[in-house]
Amino acid sequence: MTGPLIALDVMGGDDAPLATLKGALLACKAGAARIPPERLLLVGDQPRMRSMLAELGGDPGFQLEHAAQVIEMGDSPAQALRAKPDSSIARCVAAVKAGRASAVVGMGNTGACVGAATLGLGTIPGVRRPGIAVTLNLTGQPLTILDMGANIAPKADHLLQYGAMASVYAQGCLGQAKPRVGLLNVGEEKGKGTDLLKEAHELLESSGLEFVGNVEGGDIFRGVCDIVVTDGFTGNVVLKLLEQFAQFFLGKILGELERGGAKLSPSALGSLKHSIDYQSYGGALLLGVNGVVVIGHGRSDERAVANALAQAVRASDARVPERIERGLAAPSRS
Amino acid sequence: MTGPLIALDVMGGDDAPLATLKGALLACKAGAARIPPERLLLVGDQPRMRSMLAELGGDPGFQLEHAAQVIEMGDSPAQALRAKPDSSIARCVAAVKAGRASAVVGMGNTGACVGAATLGLGTIPGVRRPGIAVTLNLTGQPLTILDMGANIAPKADHLLQYGAMASVYAQGCLGQAKPRVGLLNVGEEKGKGTDLLKEAHELLESSGLEFVGNVEGGDIFRGVCDIVVTDGFTGNVVLKLLEQFAQFFLGKILGELERGGAKLSPSALGSLKHSIDYQSYGGALLLGVNGVVVIGHGRSDERAVANALAQAVRASDARVPERIERGLAAPSRS
Repeated sequence: MTGPLIALDVMGGDDAPLATLKGALLACKAGAARIPPERLLLVGDQPRMRSMLAELGGDPGFQLEHAAQVIEMGDSPAQALRAKPDSSIARCVAAVKAGRASAVVGMGNTGACVGAATLGLGTIPGVRRPGIAVTLNLTGQPLTILDMGANIAPKADHLLQYGAMASVYAQGCLGQAKPRVGLLNVGEEKGKGTDLLKEAHELLESSGLEFVGNVEGGDIFRGVCDIVVTDGFTGNVVLKLLEQFAQFFLGKILGELERGGAKLSPSALGSLKHSIDYQSYGGALLLGVNGVVVIGHGRSDERAVANALAQAVRASDARVPERIERGLAAPSRS
Repeated sequence: MTGPLIALDVMGGDDAPLATLKGALLACKAGAARIPPERLLLVGDQPRMRSMLAELGGDPGFQLEHAAQVIEMGDSPAQALRAKPDSSIARCVAAVKAGRASAVVGMGNTGACVGAATLGLGTIPGVRRPGIAVTLNLTGQPLTILDMGANIAPKADHLLQYGAMASVYAQGCLGQAKPRVGLLNVGEEKGKGTDLLKEAHELLESSGLEFVGNVEGGDIFRGVCDIVVTDGFTGNVVLKLLEQFAQFFLGKILGELERGGAKLSPSALGSLKHSIDYQSYGGALLLGVNGVVVIGHGRSDERAVANALAQAVRASDARVPERIERGLAAPSRS
């Protein structure tokens, strides 16, 4: 018994299907995630998957499923989901809905993936709104930030649930027994921020979660908490800013080094890139729906795909959705 | 004639009054801002300023004004402003209010500085809410972001006015003839974001400003605009995050370099630090009040104080408040 299937949208992402297939192969290798190939359900253009796998050295025993349509990166999510009922992402979600798989991994159109999963799987009983969580590895300790954009105008109880759902995830998958939850705000003192944040602060304080209070933008790098709760607008701005700033700043430094004739060793460069790359933890996780949903970056390479698959296996094996349901039903969370 | 006085709160800031006095001296030196000393109104504990200036090599001809009280960094702004009517920051503001000075420069308690200036000077006719602007030098082109926290729950017409006020500043002080204004949002397409942002987008589009549409978190480093308009909550999070991330990441890289036996040249390190340090442009500028108000970081060293004084001179000589009033009264802005 290898555990429930992980459905991979082979057609999604800038370099699909090559990067996704290579990623699936990598995830099965010893040294990497070592996922048994028969646990991966590869969904996409079946003849194309078959011929490409043959070129890449053969199919190690994946489950394949045909999908006749593809939602492109530039498609309008809502329109595309209606117009392309047989898309690879819709078929991945359907496999989870039907109980054949427990997780979806998609690198394609983020909006379409969130929409397909939310509509197709529905929210976990008790969950008001799903949220997108991203785990960073900046300081050597995993830091999970949510919401990254599923819900740009949340209510206070949504923010409370983000804290609760991310705590379940951090406990089950990141080895954090008592994850500390911070609320992103403009000052540390209680009473800071908008009415929404004041209300969320009250709710989090009496939630039974390990709430450490307000945290500021700079605290993300200070290790003061394991989970940062924020609205999807701020989270989205912060994530895009961090991604781009790290690349920009690293490029600037490498340029200065080159001019000065100095060099970073390849291993030092790798470690720096790793620390700023959330794809080293997998992808973004859509928390709150009835199933594990990992959304990779459109630019994911094979390594990022393999990491996203490994993350899906961890979340599936930790039964994150079931634990969220139990957690939200517990009296201390109500 | 040397132009109107610039009032410096000598007592404000972590290293005051030493750092502020050194900064005032530096700002008068050839090579630096070269402000005539008689143009600087130094406000604080007069005996202490006199003895410290003597120790630092003598008073080059500053105007001194005594203030018996100091608002400390940890004071509650509203309470402290009531309890300490003779504070150095209140006296600086009073000098502008009385027409003896045109600008205030303070490195102390930010909330107290914003509160004293807003209440003491009042808003420019037509301005709905003041906003705090910070200019960064990340890409070699100045980038002004506002609001950085004066107004954490703005309305759409406040955001419009932020774009208009920052455009006046960029034209008058940063040499940007047609500053391009972007609206910070979660996607580039029109129609993205909260209702507030959709409304602000409409207003900016028909404003006569050089509006380039929505920009995302990562665009801050791409040179797609000269001004980024956002609400004070997001702006505050972004500013603190950028400050801290740059320091954190640079520290990480220097560590990796050291381990590898490589080194950044002092000039390369200086240029990197300069690019991420908004204090190289001065301080934060409170736009929308009847006077020039520059708010420096509490940790400002003498160089940062000198830069803030130079920025105040530029904004005063460019008559930024008067230009904002004319700009907001012009038909294309209404």
